[in-house]
Amino acid sequence: MIVELISVGTEILMGNILNSNTQYLAQKCALLGMDQFYQVTVGDNYGRMTDTIKQALGRSDIVILTGGLGPTEDDLTKEVCAEAMGMQLREDPHTRKQLEEFFVNNIYTEIPENNWKMAMVPEGAIVLDNPNGMAPGLILEKNGKTAILLPGPPGELYPLFEGQVFPYLQKLQKSVLVSSMVKVCGYGESQVEDKLLDLIDGQTNPTIATYAKTAEVHIRVTARAADEAEGEALTAPILKEIKARFGNAVYTADEKVSLEMAVARLLKEKHLTMAAAESCTGGMVAARMVNVSGVSDVFMQGMVTYSNEAKMRLLGVRQETLVAYGAVSRETAAEMAAGGAAAAGTDVCVSVTGIAGPEGGTPEKPVGLVYMACFVKGKTEVRKYQFKGNRAKIREQSMMKALDLVRLCVLEYQDPKE
Amino acid sequence: MIVELISVGTEILMGNILNSNTQYLAQKCALLGMDQFYQVTVGDNYGRMTDTIKQALGRSDIVILTGGLGPTEDDLTKEVCAEAMGMQLREDPHTRKQLEEFFVNNIYTEIPENNWKMAMVPEGAIVLDNPNGMAPGLILEKNGKTAILLPGPPGELYPLFEGQVFPYLQKLQKSVLVSSMVKVCGYGESQVEDKLLDLIDGQTNPTIATYAKTAEVHIRVTARAADEAEGEALTAPILKEIKARFGNAVYTADEKVSLEMAVARLLKEKHLTMAAAESCTGGMVAARMVNVSGVSDVFMQGMVTYSNEAKMRLLGVRQETLVAYGAVSRETAAEMAAGGAAAAGTDVCVSVTGIAGPEGGTPEKPVGLVYMACFVKGKTEVRKYQFKGNRAKIREQSMMKALDLVRLCVLEYQDPKE
Repeated sequence: MIVELISVGTEILMGNILNSNTQYLAQKCALLGMDQFYQVTVGDNYGRMTDTIKQALGRSDIVILTGGLGPTEDDLTKEVCAEAMGMQLREDPHTRKQLEEFFVNNIYTEIPENNWKMAMVPEGAIVLDNPNGMAPGLILEKNGKTAILLPGPPGELYPLFEGQVFPYLQKLQKSVLVSSMVKVCGYGESQVEDKLLDLIDGQTNPTIATYAKTAEVHIRVTARAADEAEGEALTAPILKEIKARFGNAVYTADEKVSLEMAVARLLKEKHLTMAAAESCTGGMVAARMVNVSGVSDVFMQGMVTYSNEAKMRLLGVRQETLVAYGAVSRETAAEMAAGGAAAAGTDVCVSVTGIAGPEGGTPEKPVGLVYMACFVKGKTEVRKYQFKGNRAKIREQSMMKALDLVRLCVLEYQDPKE
Repeated sequence: MIVELISVGTEILMGNILNSNTQYLAQKCALLGMDQFYQVTVGDNYGRMTDTIKQALGRSDIVILTGGLGPTEDDLTKEVCAEAMGMQLREDPHTRKQLEEFFVNNIYTEIPENNWKMAMVPEGAIVLDNPNGMAPGLILEKNGKTAILLPGPPGELYPLFEGQVFPYLQKLQKSVLVSSMVKVCGYGESQVEDKLLDLIDGQTNPTIATYAKTAEVHIRVTARAADEAEGEALTAPILKEIKARFGNAVYTADEKVSLEMAVARLLKEKHLTMAAAESCTGGMVAARMVNVSGVSDVFMQGMVTYSNEAKMRLLGVRQETLVAYGAVSRETAAEMAAGGAAAAGTDVCVSVTGIAGPEGGTPEKPVGLVYMACFVKGKTEVRKYQFKGNRAKIREQSMMKALDLVRLCVLEYQDPKE
């Protein structure tokens, strides 16, 4: 089964946006075991889109197109695909109703006429409801060829693909792929590869692939098998071996579990509550924790103390500490964590203070220097990091390392009553 | 002058690496004012590479290829291009010498025989020395068509392009592109297009294009001209007209300015300090403000009060208010903003409280219901929204709308002393 990816949009051609959708879809199609020979980007132009789509349908079995499904005159993907595949467009009452609800919910006072164009659907197409946007996804099947049309914004594309397109494609494949994702913090990608070299070398089934993320590495173990049970029997011993080699650095083997979810679960298990006291991350640790639905059981409060005054007033950091050691120091980080827990009345508090740049660096305290601390019921652990990269990169690494510090400290904590 | 970008490499097709080279090259070519109609990625396969290169040379004037120039059997770009353009490969003494020096400098104990393949150059090609790697870049010119072959690793590609390819391309171009980006909050993409329809219809030079972002729309105005000054003279009246039509909804006409930067600037101008009191956004507003380097002059403190207890303790929200109206209400939002400003000692405080889901919705207060308030020196503005989408989408929209609310309230504020 050959799949071809087409990105539609002049903004990609002009380099205004990075085409990360194609990488996302390519990874998913690789996971499904589909062959991929070409990826094409084409602008919002009727003639060139028609040429591209016809060529793709000629040389591939399945064509996945992203972008160009919106309400504007530039949005041509549906029109071009319908014509290329000889299908008529007609208004779909279900999609029309979805759109009407969207406008009501989003309190549109006037609905531009061109929006109704999104309710037009090629006859016989499978409509994929889009809960995160207006334009639905579409699957067009004709003469043994399939075109899958998906919206461009990642926030709409990813859930649509995971929920509706992936299962559709999976059914077309004869064997199943069983895959697990082991997520590891505290190792770089080459270190992870090094530790797994003997397993990776000569792998055929299952296969092991590593993906570098910010401050974590994901290890995907994939087996191709006749059914789910056979696949799991193939991956189980490899998963066990990986966990043995990385120990506590593994925070999950469940693809859906993020680092913040692992932290929230662990806090719940140990009956601990948490707060965050942030300087250079400025709320990113708290925002990550609040990603977890229902986190209010364990995550009580976040304090963003970017100024020294706020560090003193809100967290009780002593002026002498700030004067003697500076805001970015082991001592301030420790006082922020302990003071944050006291202020919020929680068992645990993590603090982050650092120089995210581009300004504010000195020879003694260069940009990228970050201290973080985790207070757990009277005991405080402090870490020092020297991160590389721009402001955003330094802050993101700090946030991830802080979450992992909470995880490790809570993991170690033993309830004296138990 | 039409340019086409071809990326060579199976690792891109499989999604193992993100194709950021193409964005880099696309931006540079756009800056040069070249037309770009297609971007193609193809794997390391002789037949498919030949088809792709021949098609590109047929429909474009210049083809820029990245990747596939290395020493291994998989590296075919040079061989395929030479054959497609009818050029013979012969060993280039200069490149051979460069390679020999590279091996000496990098202390190779043994030089694999296949490395000498990199010294083979199509007859008549321009050789671009690669100071950061082994394989040189190549420019092949024949019958009015040009193929530019560049190494794939960004650390080799970027310096090679900046230093040698950009000046080469600049000489070929007669005109420049001048472009501005107007950023608008508070309108959907179709509403923006509707308001600009008469300007967009029949546009030739300058052109107007809209891009939908989360809770904002970007409008790009681009003119092609003989020089910078002529380009600016062409775009200026259009920019003025767009600003007139959208009024205060325009927060910048500078591509580099983000919404949080516009808010920080405005606070500085009006000598106001700010805090944030967040529930469902959980620190995202604060984290965005801290994106701005040096924001500590105006952004004093963030309070993440995800629990009711924290709302009372940290922000002084009254228990009666929470009982009578609930945590997600106009009244709670207003008390959070006023209480947040008092707690932080700031002039301005923005608050956000809502139901981000997936749990916690009721028929009266469904998932996506968000209240936000902005307190500015005693005056509080409250807004109600019903957002659509998943938890992340609802929270991101809330964060952007909250930043825009601060912007609008601060914009309206008149210092009584002035």
